Amino acid sequence: SISQDIDHILETQSALSVDLGGTNLRVAIVCMMGNIVKKYAQPNPKTFEARMQLIVKMCSDAIRDAVGLNCRILGVGVSTGGRVNPQEGVVMHSTKLIPEWTSVNLRTPISDALHLPVWVDNDGNCAALAEKKFGHGKGVENFVTIITGTGIGGGIIHHSELVHGSTFCAAELGHIMVSFEGPECSCGSRGCIEAYASGMALQREAKRLHDEDLLKVEGMDMKLSEPVTAGHLINAARLGNSKADAVLNKACTALGVGIVNILHIVNPSLVILSGVLSSYYKTPVQHVINERALFSAQSIKVVTSELEEPALLGAASMVLDYATRRTY
Amino acid sequence: SISQDIDHILETQSALSVDLGGTNLRVAIVCMMGNIVKKYAQPNPKTFEARMQLIVKMCSDAIRDAVGLNCRILGVGVSTGGRVNPQEGVVMHSTKLIPEWTSVNLRTPISDALHLPVWVDNDGNCAALAEKKFGHGKGVENFVTIITGTGIGGGIIHHSELVHGSTFCAAELGHIMVSFEGPECSCGSRGCIEAYASGMALQREAKRLHDEDLLKVEGMDMKLSEPVTAGHLINAARLGNSKADAVLNKACTALGVGIVNILHIVNPSLVILSGVLSSYYKTPVQHVINERALFSAQSIKVVTSELEEPALLGAASMVLDYATRRTY
Ligand SMILES: [Ca+2]
Ligand SMILES: [Ca+2]
Ligand SMILES: [Zn+2]
Ligand SMILES: [Zn+2]
Repeated sequence: SISQDIDHILETQSALSVDLGGTNLRVAIVCMMGNIVKKYAQPNPKTFEARMQLIVKMCSDAIRDAVGLNCRILGVGVSTGGRVNPQEGVVMHSTKLIPEWTSVNLRTPISDALHLPVWVDNDGNCAALAEKKFGHGKGVENFVTIITGTGIGGGIIHHSELVHGSTFCAAELGHIMVSFEGPECSCGSRGCIEAYASGMALQREAKRLHDEDLLKVEGMDMKLSEPVTAGHLINAARLGNSKADAVLNKACTALGVGIVNILHIVNPSLVILSGVLSSYYKTPVQHVINERALFSAQSIKVVTSELEEPALLGAASMVLDYATRRTY
Repeated sequence: SISQDIDHILETQSALSVDLGGTNLRVAIVCMMGNIVKKYAQPNPKTFEARMQLIVKMCSDAIRDAVGLNCRILGVGVSTGGRVNPQEGVVMHSTKLIPEWTSVNLRTPISDALHLPVWVDNDGNCAALAEKKFGHGKGVENFVTIITGTGIGGGIIHHSELVHGSTFCAAELGHIMVSFEGPECSCGSRGCIEAYASGMALQREAKRLHDEDLLKVEGMDMKLSEPVTAGHLINAARLGNSKADAVLNKACTALGVGIVNILHIVNPSLVILSGVLSSYYKTPVQHVINERALFSAQSIKVVTSELEEPALLGAASMVLDYATRRTY
């Protein structure tokens, strides 16, 4: 029938997503319904030139694969760390996590190389768009998402729209400071929640304990050759290591207090945690809110994301929403 | 001429403003152009009953005076500490600064007693409305105002509208925490900027130094009978008292870091400081922003308010804007 034909056409309309993180460069083919059809990952190169070349190369490969997968690519959505001007498709500035990433126009070279329209936004903002279109944020007017990965990113939806701010620096939630004399952060300040509760921060503390021979406890499986990670810290704490437990408690308090600060500034109705540590953080964050938020803000809901890849899905949503509106 | 007659009618359209603070209850007659025609002040009573009676009494007196002053009162605008549901005209919850101030419907009893429409909002939000209509916020799409008085209040304008949040708890800027193990705050948490940089916090520290005989320095004028205030602390620091200086430095850092948190969450283009300590705080706050804000947020402007009475003028603006639109 005609209606089935139309459904079929809609279903094969797809986006190419690019996610530029502190560790990896990933590309995905994402279909209209939010399914990731195919995914590609490489370490994110440390130089501008190599990074740009790899983006175009991975996208070209994916576009070739897309034909065989019956996916019609409508455009490219790029999610990246750093402050992004989405109107221009330019990364204005980034922290040390992605080097050589200041005043970088992503739209023009990618669009020229691939002959496709290109949208760009900050990774945390993309995650918020993904929650809005495919996740817990569907139909929620005011919510915030916080992503804990190598660093900490975030996005704010207010009146059903992303908050970008006057210089595209809104929702830099990893750099909310909760202790003005706290540990140094990659941004140059001190006491940011990223410096306490990110994967990077926990790994730093795990290494510190390991170097002092204070990490490993009885019953803990840890090979000599293994790199020390946040996972080892969590494991050690569960097995009774009080030093590891103290580090994690501080991380939870810092993240929780940072989130209370968000509640006292924009007062969303929902906080969505995502990233590998989100299920670990959920209960302690709720506990800090109960202890420290103003009475009127305590009714907030904290949930963990059910999306496998918020940044990739959000980057795709920019393409799918705009391209199908035929206005860009 | 007819045009002069119309001008005359517009100019005499006025609002009654009520400001309920941690210390005083004030009422003012405010004309359309933002001039305060007459002002009344009393200590804010400590009980609900006495407070409500005094509000109605002071308003009735002001309405009587307004006739002789050729001011036609269009309605009553109430600015109060605490979380306010402006749609209902209800104070939902307040901190210890205003006791017996939970679930208080202000609109109905005041409107019934005075036979005038009544608008209510949080004091910091009123200050933001005042800056938007009469102050530095005129024509600015995204700005934030922070008022330092007994406590610290604030208001956020985003896309030219107040941000109230999902439970009317947005812009509780005094309770942004900048040190999760910091001093106790009136809200029950710790390390809020109000606990470091409010008039109350500085007075607490001044008293502490005074009790230890560490406040007074040579050349400082201070009578035995005088109550110790934030002013003495500032004075002592200027005359070389290093302990007083350290307290004030910490207050400046805390306030500055709190403001950087706001920049990293909503990223306004302008921060307006008001209240008695605003001129003292302006330069150090700018300094903390330069040191600690992300590069993209450093272009923010920090100014001090030129309005004599932001809360009273903002309360008036709710009346003047709504009543002259003839839609309420
Ligand atoms: Ca963001
Ligand atoms: Ca407020
Ligand atoms: Zn930081
Ligand atoms: Zn507080």
